[in-house]
Amino acid sequence: MDLGYLLFLLVAFLAPAAAIIPRPVLRTLGSLHLPANPTSRPAVANNYSVLYFEQKVDHFGFTFMKTFKQRYLVADKHWRQDGGVILFYTGNEGDIVWFCNNTGFMWDVAEELKAMLVFAEHRYYGESLPFGANSFKDSRYLNFLTSEQALADFAELIKHLKRTIPGAENQPVIAIGGSYGGMLAAWFRMKYPHVVVGALAASAPIWQFEDLVSCGEFMKIVTTDFRKSNPGCPESIRRSWGVIDRISNTSHGLQWLTKALHLCGPLTYQDIPHLKEWISESWVNLAMVDYPYASDFLQPLPAWPIKVVCQYLKDPNVSDSRLLQNIFQALNVYHNYSGQAKCLNISETATSNLGSLGWSYQACTEMVMPFCTNGIDDMFELHLWNLEEFSDECFKQWGVRPRPSWITTLYGGKNISSHSNIIFSNGDLDPWSGGGVTKDITDTLIAITILNGAHHLDLRANNAFDPKSVLLARTSEVKYMKRWIREFYGSLQRQH
Amino acid sequence: MDLGYLLFLLVAFLAPAAAIIPRPVLRTLGSLHLPANPTSRPAVANNYSVLYFEQKVDHFGFTFMKTFKQRYLVADKHWRQDGGVILFYTGNEGDIVWFCNNTGFMWDVAEELKAMLVFAEHRYYGESLPFGANSFKDSRYLNFLTSEQALADFAELIKHLKRTIPGAENQPVIAIGGSYGGMLAAWFRMKYPHVVVGALAASAPIWQFEDLVSCGEFMKIVTTDFRKSNPGCPESIRRSWGVIDRISNTSHGLQWLTKALHLCGPLTYQDIPHLKEWISESWVNLAMVDYPYASDFLQPLPAWPIKVVCQYLKDPNVSDSRLLQNIFQALNVYHNYSGQAKCLNISETATSNLGSLGWSYQACTEMVMPFCTNGIDDMFELHLWNLEEFSDECFKQWGVRPRPSWITTLYGGKNISSHSNIIFSNGDLDPWSGGGVTKDITDTLIAITILNGAHHLDLRANNAFDPKSVLLARTSEVKYMKRWIREFYGSLQRQH
Repeated sequence: MDLGYLLFLLVAFLAPAAAIIPRPVLRTLGSLHLPANPTSRPAVANNYSVLYFEQKVDHFGFTFMKTFKQRYLVADKHWRQDGGVILFYTGNEGDIVWFCNNTGFMWDVAEELKAMLVFAEHRYYGESLPFGANSFKDSRYLNFLTSEQALADFAELIKHLKRTIPGAENQPVIAIGGSYGGMLAAWFRMKYPHVVVGALAASAPIWQFEDLVSCGEFMKIVTTDFRKSNPGCPESIRRSWGVIDRISNTSHGLQWLTKALHLCGPLTYQDIPHLKEWISESWVNLAMVDYPYASDFLQPLPAWPIKVVCQYLKDPNVSDSRLLQNIFQALNVYHNYSGQAKCLNISETATSNLGSLGWSYQACTEMVMPFCTNGIDDMFELHLWNLEEFSDECFKQWGVRPRPSWITTLYGGKNISSHSNIIFSNGDLDPWSGGGVTKDITDTLIAITILNGAHHLDLRANNAFDPKSVLLARTSEVKYMKRWIREFYGSLQRQH
Repeated sequence: MDLGYLLFLLVAFLAPAAAIIPRPVLRTLGSLHLPANPTSRPAVANNYSVLYFEQKVDHFGFTFMKTFKQRYLVADKHWRQDGGVILFYTGNEGDIVWFCNNTGFMWDVAEELKAMLVFAEHRYYGESLPFGANSFKDSRYLNFLTSEQALADFAELIKHLKRTIPGAENQPVIAIGGSYGGMLAAWFRMKYPHVVVGALAASAPIWQFEDLVSCGEFMKIVTTDFRKSNPGCPESIRRSWGVIDRISNTSHGLQWLTKALHLCGPLTYQDIPHLKEWISESWVNLAMVDYPYASDFLQPLPAWPIKVVCQYLKDPNVSDSRLLQNIFQALNVYHNYSGQAKCLNISETATSNLGSLGWSYQACTEMVMPFCTNGIDDMFELHLWNLEEFSDECFKQWGVRPRPSWITTLYGGKNISSHSNIIFSNGDLDPWSGGGVTKDITDTLIAITILNGAHHLDLRANNAFDPKSVLLARTSEVKYMKRWIREFYGSLQRQH
C-alpha cells in the first residue's frame, strides 16, 4: 500500500463530481464503516420522523455566529414516559438514514426498554452540512469538523429534546454507536457524563492512535481471519503481490492480467499500485463484513464470505497464472456474488453512504490512525507508517497538518479508568478490534468480546443465523443498560 | 447597581490607556479576585523559574496554526522523583506571579508532599497574550479566550512537563486553584481526569450560572457578613443609598457630599450611579477579604476589616448628614487604612494584577453569572438580573453575545456526581460560597466549609491568626491529596 499514492488520488476527489465516489483507501486506512443489510431489516419497516435542529457551527468560540441545521431522526413508537429511556445514536461519518436502517439492535430492544430512538447526524455528513455545498471547498469551512464539535452538537441536541418533548426531561439517555460512532459514544460519556448515563461503544477503536497499539495489528487480524478459513489462503494472497508485479512488467503481461481479473478497462503500468490497493481493500472489507449470514452490502455477499473466498485460494503453490486466476475467483465473490457484473471495475467501491471527503479531512487532522504492514505477520506488502509523508500529503490536500497526539491528550488514551458506564464490544474477527478495548478496565468499563463476530455484529438486527456469542453479547448489553436506567431512576427518587 | 451604566463604563476601557485600570464592576459583578498578602509571604521568599511553553492559539481547529508563549512558573526545591507529586495551579484571570505569591498554601505543603509547584498563566492574562498588544483589540483576536482553550493549554503543558522533566513522567498531578482558578481546577479534573488525579477547588462558584442558585445569594451573604458585626451596620448601608440620592439632588448637596466623603474631585449628578457602585464594590470587597489578620491588598487592611468598618455604622437612626459622614469613616477603613491618602478617588480601585478586560470578555461570553439584589434580603438597592440588556451591552462592547447556558451544558451544572476526587472548599463569609459546592456530593466529591473564612482563605499562607477552621480545612485537604497520590502509585505498581 503506497499511502502517498493513495492520498494523491484523494486530492483529485475534490472535484465536485468525484465527491460522491468513495475511495478504497478511506475504508482501508481510515474510515470505519457499517455495512448495510437491507435483507434483514428493510428500510421501509422503520418508522421515524425526520427533524432538524439549529446548531452553532462553532460551539467553542463566540465570534462566528453562523448556525446550520443538524438532521436527526426520532422513532417513539415504543417510548413510554413512565420509566422509559432515550437511546441516542451518536452518528458517524455518513448519512444518518443509513445508520438508522442498519442499527437493527436499537429497533429490536426499543419495546423492552420503552425507548425513544434518536439518530443524530454527524456534522459535515449526510444533510448536516454547515456550509451547504461549500462545506468541503475550503479548509476554513472545514475548520469546524472535529469530534469535539460533534459531541457538543449531541449535547445541545439532547438538551433541546429534553426541553421540548413533554416527558423527556427526566429520562435517562444512553449513547449508542458503532465504529467511529462507537468512539463518539464512548467519548460522549467521558466528556458529558451529565448528559448520558452510559454508552454502548460497539467496535470502537479508541486506541488506534499514536503507539497505543501496534500499527500492524489491524492487518494482522485481517490475515488471521483468512488463515482461519485455511492456512493456504493468506499465503496465496501474500504471494499474489509479487506475481502481479512480475506479470505487469510487460505490456503482454498487463493485457493478460486485465483479462485474467476480468477488469472493465485495460490496465496500464501506472494502475498497478491502485490495483493492489483495490484488491487489499477487498480483503479488508471482507474481514469487516464476515457475517454469519448472507448480507447485502450494496452488492450481495454470502454467509461467512471469507470461507467462500478462501475456497479458491487453498493452494498457494500453483503457477503464477493459476494463482491470479484464483485471486480473480476470490475477488469475484466480493465484487460480483450476484453474477450480474460483466467485469470488475477497480474504480468503483460500495460505500456511497459514507462521506469519504469528510473522513479524509478528519483523518488528516484529529483521527490520525497509524497503519502498517510488514508482509510477515500479515499477508500484505511491506508498508511502514510514515507520519511526515502523511502530514505533507494532508497539507497538500487540505492545507492542514495532523496533530496525532491530540486525541490522546483530549480523551486520555489508555488512561480512562476514572470514567464509568461504558460497554466496549468487539468481534474477534473485526480488524478494528485491534484498536479497541477488549478487556474490562473496571466493573463499569466493560469489554465484551463476540466470538466469530465481525464489525459491530451486535448492533445489527437479530438474525436466525446469529451465533450464540452475539446473542449473549446483546443480552449482556441490555442488562447493563437496564442497570443504568434503574440507577438513574433510583437517584432521581432519592432527590425527591 | 445599574448594570447598563456600568457596562457603558467598560466600553470606555477599550482605550489602551485605560486597559490597566480595572473597574469596580468587574470585581463586584464578574471577576473573582484573590487578594495579595505580601506581609505574610513576601514575593522574594519564593524561588521559582519563569518558563514559557509554545501553545496553539486554537486547540479545537486545524486551520489557524498560530502559536503563542504561555508563561509558567516552576519551583522544585522540595520535589522528589521518588514518591513526589506535581501541584499544578490552574491560573485564573490575572498575572500568574501574583497568584504564585499569594497561594502560600502550595508553598507551605511542598516539602511534606515532596511536590514540584507549577503555576500556569491563563491565556490572555499577564504575559500570556496570544496576539500580544493586539489581543484585546478585536473580537476575532478574543475568540480564543475560553475556559475550554485554557484547560487544553493546561493539559498540553502538563504533557510537555512530563515529556521533558526527567522523573516527572510517572508522577501524579493535582490541580489547585482559587476563585475562577478553582472553577478551572474542578473542570480540569472533570474533563481531563487522565491528566490530574484530583483537584482542590477553593472558593469556586461553579454553580453561579443560570438559575442553579438564586441570583440574590451573593449580595445576601455580603449583607450577612456585615450584620454579623452588628445589625445596625447593614441597616446604615441600606439607608445610605436613598440619602445619597436625596442629597445629590441639589448642587449644594453635591458639594456637601464631595466634602463629606473626602472625594478627590467634585461630584456631578451624573457621577452618582458610579459613586454608589464604587461604594457597593467596597462593601463587597470587604466581604471577600474579611481575613482574621491584617493583610495588605494594595492598600493595607486591618484584621477582620468588616468589624472595624461596622464600628462606624452601628446606628442607622442618625441624621442624613451624620449617616454619610459615618459611611465616609467606614469607606476610609477600606480605602485609606494607612492614613496616607489625602482624598478618596472613586475612579481608582486596587486590582491592577487582575486582567479586567479579559474577564469582561469572559463574562460577556461563557462566564455569565447572574447577580441581583432586592434591597430587602440585602443592603443594596433593587437591581434585577436582565439578560437581554446584558447581552446588548456585551454586543456593543465586544461584538459578541453571551451564551448563558453553555457552561452548564459543557460542565454539567449540578449533575456532576459521576466525577471524582474534587475538594470544594468555601469560607462561610465569602459571598462566592453562594455559588459554590458546600455539601458533599459523593465520598470523593468533598465539600469543606471554613467557618469564619473569607475568599479562599485556605489557599493563603499559614498565619498565626488563622482560625482553627482553616487549619482543619488545610489538614483535610492534605489528607485527601495524600490519598490521591497513594492511589496513583498503588495503581502504577499494579500495572507493573
